[in-house]
Amino acid sequence: MPVTPTTVPPASADLSRLLDAIAQRIGAAHVLRAADDMAPYLREERGLYQGRTPAVVRPGTTEEVAFIVSACAEAGVSIVPQGGNTGLVGGQMPFGELLVSLARLDRIRDVDPVDMTMTVEAGVILDTVHRAAEEAGCLFPLHIASQGSCRIGGNLSSNAGGTAVLRYGNARELVLGLEVVLADGQVWNGLRCLRKNNAGYDLKQLFLGTEGTLGLITAAVLKLFPQPAQRSTAFLAVPDPAAALALLKRLRGEAGDALTTFELMAGFGVETVLKHMPGTVRPFRDAYAWYVLVELSAPTRAFDLPALLEQGLADALEAGEVLDAVIAASEAQAQGLWRLREDMSEAQKHEGGSIKHDVSVPVSRVPEFLERALPAVMAALPGLRPCPFGHVGDGNIHFNLSQPVGMEKAAFIAMWETFNRIVHDIVVEMDGSIAAEHGIGLLKAHELAHYADPVSLDLMRRLKGALDPGDLLNPGKVIE
Amino acid sequence: MPVTPTTVPPASADLSRLLDAIAQRIGAAHVLRAADDMAPYLREERGLYQGRTPAVVRPGTTEEVAFIVSACAEAGVSIVPQGGNTGLVGGQMPFGELLVSLARLDRIRDVDPVDMTMTVEAGVILDTVHRAAEEAGCLFPLHIASQGSCRIGGNLSSNAGGTAVLRYGNARELVLGLEVVLADGQVWNGLRCLRKNNAGYDLKQLFLGTEGTLGLITAAVLKLFPQPAQRSTAFLAVPDPAAALALLKRLRGEAGDALTTFELMAGFGVETVLKHMPGTVRPFRDAYAWYVLVELSAPTRAFDLPALLEQGLADALEAGEVLDAVIAASEAQAQGLWRLREDMSEAQKHEGGSIKHDVSVPVSRVPEFLERALPAVMAALPGLRPCPFGHVGDGNIHFNLSQPVGMEKAAFIAMWETFNRIVHDIVVEMDGSIAAEHGIGLLKAHELAHYADPVSLDLMRRLKGALDPGDLLNPGKVIE
Repeated sequence: MPVTPTTVPPASADLSRLLDAIAQRIGAAHVLRAADDMAPYLREERGLYQGRTPAVVRPGTTEEVAFIVSACAEAGVSIVPQGGNTGLVGGQMPFGELLVSLARLDRIRDVDPVDMTMTVEAGVILDTVHRAAEEAGCLFPLHIASQGSCRIGGNLSSNAGGTAVLRYGNARELVLGLEVVLADGQVWNGLRCLRKNNAGYDLKQLFLGTEGTLGLITAAVLKLFPQPAQRSTAFLAVPDPAAALALLKRLRGEAGDALTTFELMAGFGVETVLKHMPGTVRPFRDAYAWYVLVELSAPTRAFDLPALLEQGLADALEAGEVLDAVIAASEAQAQGLWRLREDMSEAQKHEGGSIKHDVSVPVSRVPEFLERALPAVMAALPGLRPCPFGHVGDGNIHFNLSQPVGMEKAAFIAMWETFNRIVHDIVVEMDGSIAAEHGIGLLKAHELAHYADPVSLDLMRRLKGALDPGDLLNPGKVIE
Repeated sequence: MPVTPTTVPPASADLSRLLDAIAQRIGAAHVLRAADDMAPYLREERGLYQGRTPAVVRPGTTEEVAFIVSACAEAGVSIVPQGGNTGLVGGQMPFGELLVSLARLDRIRDVDPVDMTMTVEAGVILDTVHRAAEEAGCLFPLHIASQGSCRIGGNLSSNAGGTAVLRYGNARELVLGLEVVLADGQVWNGLRCLRKNNAGYDLKQLFLGTEGTLGLITAAVLKLFPQPAQRSTAFLAVPDPAAALALLKRLRGEAGDALTTFELMAGFGVETVLKHMPGTVRPFRDAYAWYVLVELSAPTRAFDLPALLEQGLADALEAGEVLDAVIAASEAQAQGLWRLREDMSEAQKHEGGSIKHDVSVPVSRVPEFLERALPAVMAALPGLRPCPFGHVGDGNIHFNLSQPVGMEKAAFIAMWETFNRIVHDIVVEMDGSIAAEHGIGLLKAHELAHYADPVSLDLMRRLKGALDPGDLLNPGKVIE
């Protein structure tokens, strides 16, 4: 179970002066000090953490963020930045530090359908980015479960992944430029719209995926893509993960980049969705051990995607890679199939405690990982119900474990460290990653320190020292 | 004209001891001290620089590189790393520093067609990477003019671009992992094959595109792609760059990612190729002011690319975006069309001195850039013959200037700084980059210092200070 750190807040007189100065600059209404007002910012969605902060400050512009950071740097007060408060590793949670919410920086500054770029502030909700892209006839392809409430600054700070990485890459690959407030309050303006730029070090890389520990992202230039003109979605039963991998290779060979999504799910997960989520529909008469959700899309109607998918699946059925298949005949049917995948985390909440691992291995080794990890966790706790699913095309498995029926939830959650060691030992032995797409935050800082080689840790500390020598930005996150 | 810096070499007794120790470790045959032996390493291809070094050392393994760097760090001797010596900005040239050639690290350690990865050492020649990928039924899509002699370590250190960036991204996007010797001689092993990994800071980004100033890349894990099953190539005459941009938008909308290459060329450049390069063939009866080379490719035969290209070009002819078109009917014809673009730099050498600018602007502003820059340079020197060409889909124009007929070459080259100021002022005003794909090296370090904002320069210096506090790695390159 995650440990919450203790931070000593600064002397109250100093803090009070600091908050007064901030209130004067950004407006008293945007400095929240009452417990009720602060509560939504301090409650972690899954109840893993309860944050503590002297105040939640809500700047409305980059200049106001710079003022706050600068004032905090002078006062020696540390800061935790927060976007939509949807992070899964506690990176957005303060434990005594000042909480700086970026939610009011929510302007879309520019959409350019010729350059295929959008300039957004950090607080824009991901779904709002999607809609603005669509209105311009474009696509922003970052799709994650929390897209209705997560904010783009947090997505970029955590290098979010999701269900379209196979085709479009991680959040890092979707960014052309950034605007960042540095630890001393200086603003770095790297809001470039260029597809090629080797004029010096690529400084934006310092802030993408570093979880607010090296600077606060306040705005970004995003890459847009042509909007799909057609989509073909299928839900498949497959005999095992090895067959899923063979199918992936087949469909990539046939469809190339038209293959946008390829998600593997264990039967237990799909049954859990069907049991708990109203309106979901069983795709096949029989239940199977493993399923795959496939989506093909293309920005043109010049390619016959339905024929391509039908032929590919017919060949896969004949090769024994697929046991049963349903192809969506309408957008509504496609959405129904997607729900079987997308509702999985939500459905799992109805089955008691869940211990989650967000891991990756080389794509070719996903079956081996599952063959090793599943018996290992089952042996540690009889009755455990593993619910692995995820982005098999990226080698990224959400290796989630639902508690045995009837076990006390707290007793199960207390086994978090035990399961970490079992799962992460296997992952690291297989040259994998203990943090594929959710980041390190606080939840895994101790795990990172345990597994990372000393040279990597030293390099990370040197970077932190160079950019935030006072350890004022999100202290204790990522690097212990 | 580029200025060559002066570096004071270390006291000769110390240096002699250092070289003896290196010779003992890597073999005396791999420590070159005779002027004739060293000459090929010190001659810059275009004659812009003549390097100077006490010795060229040629380690054969990562451990030998680490030994050399460690010994140099102890002795306070600075180092310039070199791959294939094909860089266009002098980044690989020593001026008193020890030259460390990575050419003997030329093993392909692994090719994995399931994971679609290849692990290569820094000294592998780019064309060798291409062939090894092909033999495994895959594609490594980095294509640049020097691919027959440049080495992959240099390509990654300079974040090379080329003719397939439109579809596959820059070199940075083609890398999953790196092995790097740090300034103190420690080896950082980041040779991961993972498609998703957020376990801490993405440290490889520190070494990609930083031109050997923060560490020496010794090996890399490259991303491979499905091999194209079909290609369609066309050469087009277009009325102007604005029409080329409209055509780009049209073809991207129709072909999506099947559009792999989209290159713009001025008529003068194509005429120069036809005049000087034996075996090249005029594509049209008439000469035109502007041309475009287009290539579509797909990993499957399920898409009818020829039909798609023919229809797209028919529509473009009707819309006035294209004046004349030829579609290659065979692989030999396609190669002939490619030569009109690929031989351009070579052909230009026959027209006397050439002052080159490797710039980028937002894609939508390429026509505006050319409309402003062409008259500006013509006004500065009557008779000048501009030869702009390049990757218009990336906003990257090689704004090359051939000297007026009859002018003395040296007098023309002496105007380098004058033209830099004219061209780069326009580029920077347009939010562009003065170094799109060739890097900064020594040639543009002064320009970068002139144009970069103080916050960016400060961040670069902080990184350099954190990773190479003794300024031992490629000193004076990128950052003055």
